[in-house]
Formats: sequence, C-alpha cells, structure tokens
Amino acid sequence: MADDKDPGPTQLAPRFSSASPAEVAAGGGLLSRRAVLTGAVVAGALSAVAARAANPDWSDAAKPWQKQPGRPFSRYGQPSVHVREIERSVTLREGDVAPGNGSSFTPLHLLRGTLTPNGLHFERHHNGVPDIDPDHHRLVIHGLVERPLRFDFDALLRYPMVNRTVFIECSGNSFRNTFPKVQEVSCGDIHGLISTSEWTGVPLSLLLAEAGVRADAKWVIAEGADAATMARSIPLAKALDDVLVAFYQNGEPLRPEQGFPMRLVLPGYEGNMSIKWVHRLELTEVPLHARDETSHYTDLLPDGRALQFTFPMGVKSVITQPSAGWDLQGSGYYDVSGLAWTGAGRITRVEVSADGGATWAEAELQGTPPRHGVVRFRIPWRWDGKPTSLASRATDETGAVQPDRATWLARYGATQRYHYNAIQHWAVDAEGRLRNVYA
Amino acid sequence: MADDKDPGPTQLAPRFSSASPAEVAAGGGLLSRRAVLTGAVVAGALSAVAARAANPDWSDAAKPWQKQPGRPFSRYGQPSVHVREIERSVTLREGDVAPGNGSSFTPLHLLRGTLTPNGLHFERHHNGVPDIDPDHHRLVIHGLVERPLRFDFDALLRYPMVNRTVFIECSGNSFRNTFPKVQEVSCGDIHGLISTSEWTGVPLSLLLAEAGVRADAKWVIAEGADAATMARSIPLAKALDDVLVAFYQNGEPLRPEQGFPMRLVLPGYEGNMSIKWVHRLELTEVPLHARDETSHYTDLLPDGRALQFTFPMGVKSVITQPSAGWDLQGSGYYDVSGLAWTGAGRITRVEVSADGGATWAEAELQGTPPRHGVVRFRIPWRWDGKPTSLASRATDETGAVQPDRATWLARYGATQRYHYNAIQHWAVDAEGRLRNVYA
Repeated sequence: MADDKDPGPTQLAPRFSSASPAEVAAGGGLLSRRAVLTGAVVAGALSAVAARAANPDWSDAAKPWQKQPGRPFSRYGQPSVHVREIERSVTLREGDVAPGNGSSFTPLHLLRGTLTPNGLHFERHHNGVPDIDPDHHRLVIHGLVERPLRFDFDALLRYPMVNRTVFIECSGNSFRNTFPKVQEVSCGDIHGLISTSEWTGVPLSLLLAEAGVRADAKWVIAEGADAATMARSIPLAKALDDVLVAFYQNGEPLRPEQGFPMRLVLPGYEGNMSIKWVHRLELTEVPLHARDETSHYTDLLPDGRALQFTFPMGVKSVITQPSAGWDLQGSGYYDVSGLAWTGAGRITRVEVSADGGATWAEAELQGTPPRHGVVRFRIPWRWDGKPTSLASRATDETGAVQPDRATWLARYGATQRYHYNAIQHWAVDAEGRLRNVYA
Repeated sequence: MADDKDPGPTQLAPRFSSASPAEVAAGGGLLSRRAVLTGAVVAGALSAVAARAANPDWSDAAKPWQKQPGRPFSRYGQPSVHVREIERSVTLREGDVAPGNGSSFTPLHLLRGTLTPNGLHFERHHNGVPDIDPDHHRLVIHGLVERPLRFDFDALLRYPMVNRTVFIECSGNSFRNTFPKVQEVSCGDIHGLISTSEWTGVPLSLLLAEAGVRADAKWVIAEGADAATMARSIPLAKALDDVLVAFYQNGEPLRPEQGFPMRLVLPGYEGNMSIKWVHRLELTEVPLHARDETSHYTDLLPDGRALQFTFPMGVKSVITQPSAGWDLQGSGYYDVSGLAWTGAGRITRVEVSADGGATWAEAELQGTPPRHGVVRFRIPWRWDGKPTSLASRATDETGAVQPDRATWLARYGATQRYHYNAIQHWAVDAEGRLRNVYA
C-alpha cells in the first residue's frame, strides 16, 4: 500500500535484527516478555533500516476526507463501513427448521483488549430471541421462602446495584476441536463462545434476603421467559455468593440476545446457567433435573457414565493474534497475544510455545488478572520463516493447568461436547499461513 | 403496572420502615453506605409489608414471547426496541450551516456501571465525522527526530499493544452550568461530555523510540485527518508517559466518531488533546499555538487574562440516579448512585449531601478507583417526602476537592466554558420531581 514514488519518511513495520541472547526466552524465537515494551528490541532493530530524511513534501496528497466536511452527529453510533467483516459467525444452516436454536460466535481473532462490545457478544439460544416488553415482565421468587415475592422491572431498578466484569463461556465452547477432523475455521469460529462484559445488577442474595430463605432450601431453580423455557438448578450457596440479577451490560441495558430486560450472571459457571430473560426463581430442596441439565449439559464419559452439575468452567487460554487464517508478512518480529480465563477465579500464569510444545516461555499478563474475568497475555516472537506451531497454556490460582488435547480426549472421549479446555496449537507453514492443527 | 386481580406473591419495591439510628450517616435521610448491601435495612423493612401466601396460580398469564419462537441470530446486535429512547442528545439546531460542528452527549442518567457502550460515547466534532479508508491512512512522525517515519495501518497493528480503561472528558463538559440560567435538561444533557472505554493501542513512547527523539524536542504537535485539521500541542513528557495510539475501543475497532482508524488517548487530559483520526506527529521545541488552543480551549479569567495549556481535567462527580427529570415514587428508600473522576489520577472519596450541603455522608466507592478511570459511588437514602436537594462532592489523591459553584464562578466567571467541575445539586420538590438547581 506504500506509494513508491513518495520521497518521504521511511515506511516502517516492526523488525527484529539483533536481539541479544539474553532476550531469548524459549525455542522457536520466543523472547522475554519484557523485551519490547522497554524499547530494547524494536528500537534497536532500526539499525537495519536506512532512515531517509524527511522531504518538505513529506505527506501523502490530501485525502478526500480532509477536503470536505464529514457527516453530522448520530444518536446511536455504528461501526465503520470499513470493518463490516467484523461480525458474529452464525451456525445457522439453510433450511434449518429451528432457526432460533444454535449459536453465533464472537470473532476473537478480530478483536483486541479484554471486553466484548455488546453487538458482538456470543449468542446461544434454544428457541430464538424473545422480544420482551419490560412493562409486562415479572420476576417471581417462590418455593421454600418465608414471603413469596413478585417484582416488576421498575421495582427491581430501585435496589442497590453492583458491577462485575466477568466472562460468560458456553459450556460447549470449542466443541469443534473435540472432533477428529474439523473444517479450517478461525479462532472465533472455534473458541468464540466466550465474551466478557461489565455486568451491572442487583445481588441475588439481596432479593433472596427480601423473600426470606427457609432452612430446608438447598437449590434455586431459575427459569427464563423464552419460548424454550430454559431452566437450570443453581446451588443455594452460589446464589448467595456472587450471582447477579443483571440489567446492564457494558453500561447500557442488556441486549435482547443477552437477556433483556434481565438475566442471571453466575461468575465462572457454565454459560447457560446465567439464565437469560429470567422470570422465575424457585427455592427447593433438590435440583430440578431440567431438560437442559439432563439431555444437554452433562458430560458423557467414555465408560458410559455422565457427569452432571459440572458447573465451573476449566482453566483455558487461546492465542488470538496471530491465529488460524492469518498470513504472516515474512520472517521477523510479531507480537503474540491472546486471552486466558478460569472458572476457578484468577489466572496466575500463561506460557507460550513456538516450537510445538517442546519449550515454553512465560508471557506477560496485562494488568492484574480479574476474578472470573479474562486477562490478555502477550509475548514477543521472532519468526525465522520456517514451519512451526504456536500454543498457549494457562495456570490458575488453584494450580490447575490447561491440559493438552490428548489428555482431555483420554478423559472425555471425542463425543463429549462440553468443558473442552485443551491447549490450542496453531500451525504456521513456510508461507506464513496459520491454521488449526486439529483440522 | 401490577395486575390488581392477581392473588399471587407480594408486589415489592424496596421500602424503608425502621432504620436503626446507628445507620443514619447524615441529614436529609442519608444512611451508612454499608446499611443495605449487608441486608440490614431493606430486608428488615419487610416487617411493614403484609406477606401473602403464594397461590398455586401465582404466575402471570403466559406472555406472547413464551408461546412462539423468538427471532434468529444476528451478526451484529442492536439494542431492544423498548429502550430506543436511550440515545445521545445532539446540540444540532435546525438550519445550522455547519452540521458537523457541535456535540452529542452520553445519556449518563440512563446508564449504569462505569463503561460507555460504543454507540453512546459522546461526540465533539469541529467539522463532522470523516469516513476514512484505513488502507489510505498514514501516520507520520517527523520534526526533531533522528528518523522521520511513516506507518501504514497494518504496520502499526504489528506493534505490541496495551489496554487502558480511562475516561475522556471534553474540556467544555458541563458548560451549561456556567450560565446564570439554563433550560431544564437531564444530567446527560449537562454533564454527558464524558465517556469511559477500554482503549487498546500502541504506546506512543514506543513509536517515538522508533523515530528517535532528539534532545532539543520538547513538544509533540498532533494533527487529525478530519476536515477541521484539529491540532494540539502535547508536552513531550506526557507523550512519553502514558499516551496511546489507540485502534480499539471496548474490544472492537474505534467507531468513526471516536477516530477510526486511529486516535490518541491522553489519560486525564482535556478531551480534544486525544486527537481523533490522527495522521501526523511533529516533534518541536515550542508549542504550535494552534487555532484550537488559542481561539478555543483556553480559560478566560474575569481579569481578562486567559490561561493556556490547562491540560488535566479537575476532580469531579455527579449523581446520575436519581437526577434531573426523575420522578421519585413516593417517600422511602432510594439508592443514590453516580460517577466520580479526576484528571490527577485516582478518586479517594465521594461524599453525598441530602440537605442542600449542610451535612455530608461518605458514599461507597464500588471497586478500587482506577487511575484516570471513573468510579461509581452509591449511598442509601430515605426520602421523607419533603423538598430538598441531593449533591455529591469528590476528593482525589492529590487532596483536591470538587469546588462549589460559587467558588468556581469566583475564579472563572460566567463566560468561561472550560474545566467546569463544580458540585451539582439536584433539587427535589414535594412531588418527588428532580431538576437542576441552576436552571
């Protein structure tokens, strides 16, 4: 895209000419996570670049947008037309009889930072997205309580609210990688059933205190107002701990796809327990064994037994940049970046391998890993232009380490679709093309 | 909205019957910030409510959205049709000759949490929103550097990136309250030229290291590619400290209104220095004295002198819920909530008054106040049904305290429009209607 006739400043992409041996952190070209942001590596690399003096006429010719007034203000903004390819990928197939049953995936490979914009939060619906009028929506708390209660929307908004920035991950996220062979797809297509938002709402514990929980209550049955009547059984201890009845997502009211006008948020637990469009909470002695925790959302093991009520999501990470579908622009410096998270609480370490798992180097964690949030990791990498693979491996505060795929398959087999959290390797070929190793 | 014929559970809004004297924190009904979330107050209030037993037919009749499949998946989500009134308010007037010069305001009074969704981030443009093709946009670094450089978009994306969750506040935010009399408008209409995002980009210090800053450089002149050619002078020390060349906003590419494909982010400094659509950075010995830092964005004092280069935004807070335009639903319990921030770094304290400033109680700060971010505060309040006013007052880590309006006006007078950070009082009348005291 450079204009070769332009006599102006040097065109520059980060290069890598002369890292000292002390900066090498692992095989395959991984460097110390501190090597670049301190300026030690990239700036030094410029010794290989011939700097050209600035010509007085250094600038490109004025662009159209500099010569005419731009468009006026808008009441609700939308993305640039130049990034329209950044969208959710939808599993819907032509002729599906139930177009509201399926998923759409967050394009993790096209996003940076840690938050998911509301328009790109993943979707998992069992019978489509209801269009709920909040003036006709009620939340009922009943069963083993002292005072059965019914709240309308406006009443709930008067309660004190708290914020929790947490991920929600579908229990079936990454299920494509449980298959022996999958199509060549992007990182988002494989792992994009996880999204992160600042959720704002009323602590469920406060509403349960209003109702008065009876001593014999052990579970909360939560039910949604969608046409699938999604229902799950929540242990009372979790309900009294950190669960929200959420009304806001990244500052604005929930999107319809994420439960407008209200949903539960269960930090760290499998996504479908964070019941969307929630309208009923029943306190009980025993779990419901609802359709969606018996026929679905159980973990069938190779010996024929099925694990039920496996709530927290496992420790996990994935490299998002670069990832499947990327074309590296020649050998040299790349910043490897990705996301890590755990249902157990906080991530403590992410390691990256650039030689197929033979050696690992510790990546930088950006900021303090939040409880039940995602943390972005990064590490500088010098690609030597030869075929290899990139992978990341996360460890959490309980000491749990992300397993490799063989270990995961040995435990669960290839027909189990839930709680897949194995290490993802991205193959890099000699042309710099990346793809899923498991494809 | 309740169905009076329904024999089901108790309809409930939070009430306030019997706070113990120990919970009272200040005059006008302010309670200890710890009083409610611990369950001590709201739950106890139920003694005044006759609990009715749940009828087996407790639920409302099934709603339409429970009886038919919902709509299918979408590639980029949008807000519910039921919250379409939540939008930016635009200053544009009919017949304006320059429809791209003005502002649109974030509706702070309709949002919760701390983040601003991208569609509602405030706008301030001087000649409209350019539609920039990133393939034809360049960033040039020249002037007092060893190596003038020109980057295309793809080259910049290869550099290491960092995240900063910070506010951007227009220097002219809240200018309506500098007038002796203003129209009755909402909290967002007055104070909505502040928004908060997770910004992701390359540290400017890294790009300056690539270019090699010469010892005689003291300023960075930053220029945007919009038709107004917005330009500001940035002290080199700030540029080398925490400034980002940002590409992502809350995880996705910048919106056109916020600088797509790239902008500067100067944490804590007045908003228009965070140059949008940035395309040129010139290192100089002296500031540019650009049109937008001489004719605009200087602080004219009553004695005729004008302060220039007053970069950091002052310590500030505002109650967003309840605020102007709200109707309280009778006396009783309300949760008072708002936002606080400071260009100096971190907020350390927010106090709230419910008796016109006679007495103040300390509000709860939700989470650790972030550096150059906003913190949400809250405090429980029992309204006795009589006319009063509500106000908040912030203190930051430098010891700076938000001034009252008289103090601010004594310093700046009523014709200065920048850096207004005085305490906002919301009047509450006997009907529970809130309005701006300065209207």
